[in-house]
Amino acid sequence: MSVGLETETAPSSRDDDARVRELAAELFDALSVATGDGVGITRESYGKGESTALDIVEARARALGLQAQRDAGANLVVTLAGTQPQLPFLACGSHLDSVPQGGNFDGAAGVVAGLAILAGFMHEGFRPRRTLKLFALRGEESARFGKAYVGSSALLGALSAADLELKAADSNITMGACMAQVGVDVERVKKAEPLLDPNSFAAWVELHIEQGPVLVARGLPVAIVTGVRGNVRHRTVECIGAAGHSGAVPRWLRHDAMFATSELVSHLDHHWRTLLERGRDLVITIGVVTTDPREHAIARIPGKLCFSFEARSQSRETLKAFYDLFLSECRLVGEERGVEFKLDRRLESSPAGMDPGWVARLRGAARALGLPDEEIPSGAGHDAAVFANAGIPSAMVIVRNEHGSHNPREAMAIEDFAAGVAVMRAALREAAA
Amino acid sequence: MSVGLETETAPSSRDDDARVRELAAELFDALSVATGDGVGITRESYGKGESTALDIVEARARALGLQAQRDAGANLVVTLAGTQPQLPFLACGSHLDSVPQGGNFDGAAGVVAGLAILAGFMHEGFRPRRTLKLFALRGEESARFGKAYVGSSALLGALSAADLELKAADSNITMGACMAQVGVDVERVKKAEPLLDPNSFAAWVELHIEQGPVLVARGLPVAIVTGVRGNVRHRTVECIGAAGHSGAVPRWLRHDAMFATSELVSHLDHHWRTLLERGRDLVITIGVVTTDPREHAIARIPGKLCFSFEARSQSRETLKAFYDLFLSECRLVGEERGVEFKLDRRLESSPAGMDPGWVARLRGAARALGLPDEEIPSGAGHDAAVFANAGIPSAMVIVRNEHGSHNPREAMAIEDFAAGVAVMRAALREAAA
Repeated sequence: MSVGLETETAPSSRDDDARVRELAAELFDALSVATGDGVGITRESYGKGESTALDIVEARARALGLQAQRDAGANLVVTLAGTQPQLPFLACGSHLDSVPQGGNFDGAAGVVAGLAILAGFMHEGFRPRRTLKLFALRGEESARFGKAYVGSSALLGALSAADLELKAADSNITMGACMAQVGVDVERVKKAEPLLDPNSFAAWVELHIEQGPVLVARGLPVAIVTGVRGNVRHRTVECIGAAGHSGAVPRWLRHDAMFATSELVSHLDHHWRTLLERGRDLVITIGVVTTDPREHAIARIPGKLCFSFEARSQSRETLKAFYDLFLSECRLVGEERGVEFKLDRRLESSPAGMDPGWVARLRGAARALGLPDEEIPSGAGHDAAVFANAGIPSAMVIVRNEHGSHNPREAMAIEDFAAGVAVMRAALREAAA
Repeated sequence: MSVGLETETAPSSRDDDARVRELAAELFDALSVATGDGVGITRESYGKGESTALDIVEARARALGLQAQRDAGANLVVTLAGTQPQLPFLACGSHLDSVPQGGNFDGAAGVVAGLAILAGFMHEGFRPRRTLKLFALRGEESARFGKAYVGSSALLGALSAADLELKAADSNITMGACMAQVGVDVERVKKAEPLLDPNSFAAWVELHIEQGPVLVARGLPVAIVTGVRGNVRHRTVECIGAAGHSGAVPRWLRHDAMFATSELVSHLDHHWRTLLERGRDLVITIGVVTTDPREHAIARIPGKLCFSFEARSQSRETLKAFYDLFLSECRLVGEERGVEFKLDRRLESSPAGMDPGWVARLRGAARALGLPDEEIPSGAGHDAAVFANAGIPSAMVIVRNEHGSHNPREAMAIEDFAAGVAVMRAALREAAA
């Protein structure tokens, strides 16, 4: 690990690094103790655990001498005023809520990173030209209300009145009521009124633990996100063939839903591999597969098989190209096998490209620190996608993490966290100066 | 259709054919009326509907001047005495029970065929050297007790005391009690004592409707069975991979149970095609497939998939070869994909070869009648397999039938039935003379 190298462009020091580790250890510990549930941690969106986490960070920010207040969305905002406050501000942060029995770093790492950076600037007497703001957002996880990115969406006027009627999974209370209880200006949210003008942001920069295994597998402490993947989905694809006696129908007379689906999926796998070899970004998942439990049997040719379909990519074009291949394979395999693939409604979410200028700045900062400057797509969704889709130049630093997320086994080494903070600090220093 | 041709070896006539059709129409109608359930017909094994069917056939046999009685297995036995009664007898027949809401021809066609042949011989004054016996067997279907071929197995001493304790699906009564109620000598059955000496049989010849779509697809009214397929099965194969976030785990780090299983099944399909091209007899079925309903989701890489496996063939060697390919593909795909295929206990049933001499005799009879003499494997199981596995030379004529079996939509044309009867009659005449 080569964090803490001193260079001209990034005056990071072993002292900075030590202070980051100390603050991080203290805050992660405090959060874990206060919101632990015996298995993992629980900081329910717009609920008690989340509010407790905001309180802890707010108290620490104040103790460090930073300004801290709640905004109209009841998020915590910590500010380091710039010398030219009329300029659009640089925003950083992440979310403080969690799934039930979740991990301590998912979301909180980005908030602690922002606080460490603002505190570090203050400590060294760096006065930025642009104001820096740390947002500790609420309501990023979909676990409680079935909707993700609520805090950032509310901030940017992207929620509807119908969204506010969503019921909490743990009670019969609506999301609007829960938001009101913690101080959100629900009337403005309901009217889809932005609580903050998107033009007041110069950028959104977010640090987050990786929720997949790539950085561990590739031996990278950090990476720079190029985009948050969008997706195209079908909840249910039905393969309709013809049931029959397993012993009495030979291969040439079969309309076998399982052999047809296996061939379809194998073809999709080949196309996937080909697109990856051509440098496209793509992941495909068939997460749900089932024959009909009311009629399936060992000795019955399955006349029907249901499965889900999901493709994700950073690129709209790749998503479209792959989806067209999917439709074409459904037709071809269907014709060859005498089955029909029936698709339910197509569900889509747009990819969110990270800002190329910011990606370059973060990569440059990483290189200057002697760190790898690898680019990586984010397969998991993040608040950064909401900011990016609102037109705000957005960027993300991803930190190595074992065992995925949304579970208490997530494991981020503090050295990796410090490396991520160092990269983000250098980039923010450059942009704020 | 060229049934009814008069030739030297098979003195079948338009009169024979007309008498067969008349008797068949009358008996099928009587059976359908007496055992109809509003949807299809129901003749439950060792129950009311089955007994009613035996009574109808027995009354008609007596009216035709044939001897008829029940044996120690409570089956109906109709006899045309030979001139040398000390010789092993020629047996024909099939079963009279059915699945609930089943079809009228499954089983009954073979019994009606036998009665038509014996009645025809009697009518024309043909006195065979060997005695001819028609068996209207009970208990062939597994629907009521979960066990198939009970009637033929009981006859040959192939049931156990444990089998007799099986409970009926429609009540809490044991199979043994149901058998006793209709007059089976349960004490002898329990001791696995053959109710008839296998050596007293010269042959078992059975006519049955096809339970698959091959004869319809190939335009054949009848075909000669070469063997009843055996099988090798696993109720549950588990593909164990690793669950993960569908967006965050790239292809090269996946242990995806669905992509692995699809590849396995596609490879099995290729091997299947190759073996068929080499003339092997084989059918493969993956009848049950399911991800875990407690944890599967569109956005979750399936860490586990369960499926059933079945291969059927007339050839022990082909079954073994294909099963070895299956194990080898489980290993190879498992290694390549980082998953494990875990197999539960292997279940097997032996193929039953039909007697080559009888196959040749039936094919010769078909050719002499101007009918196609195609050979076909039987994928569905039949009493003939029980007789064959007891060492009795066995043979089957299969008659074209639409819409499969075990449903009220089964459809056998009376012309096809008459053609099957003509083939069987000619072969039995030759063997009995």
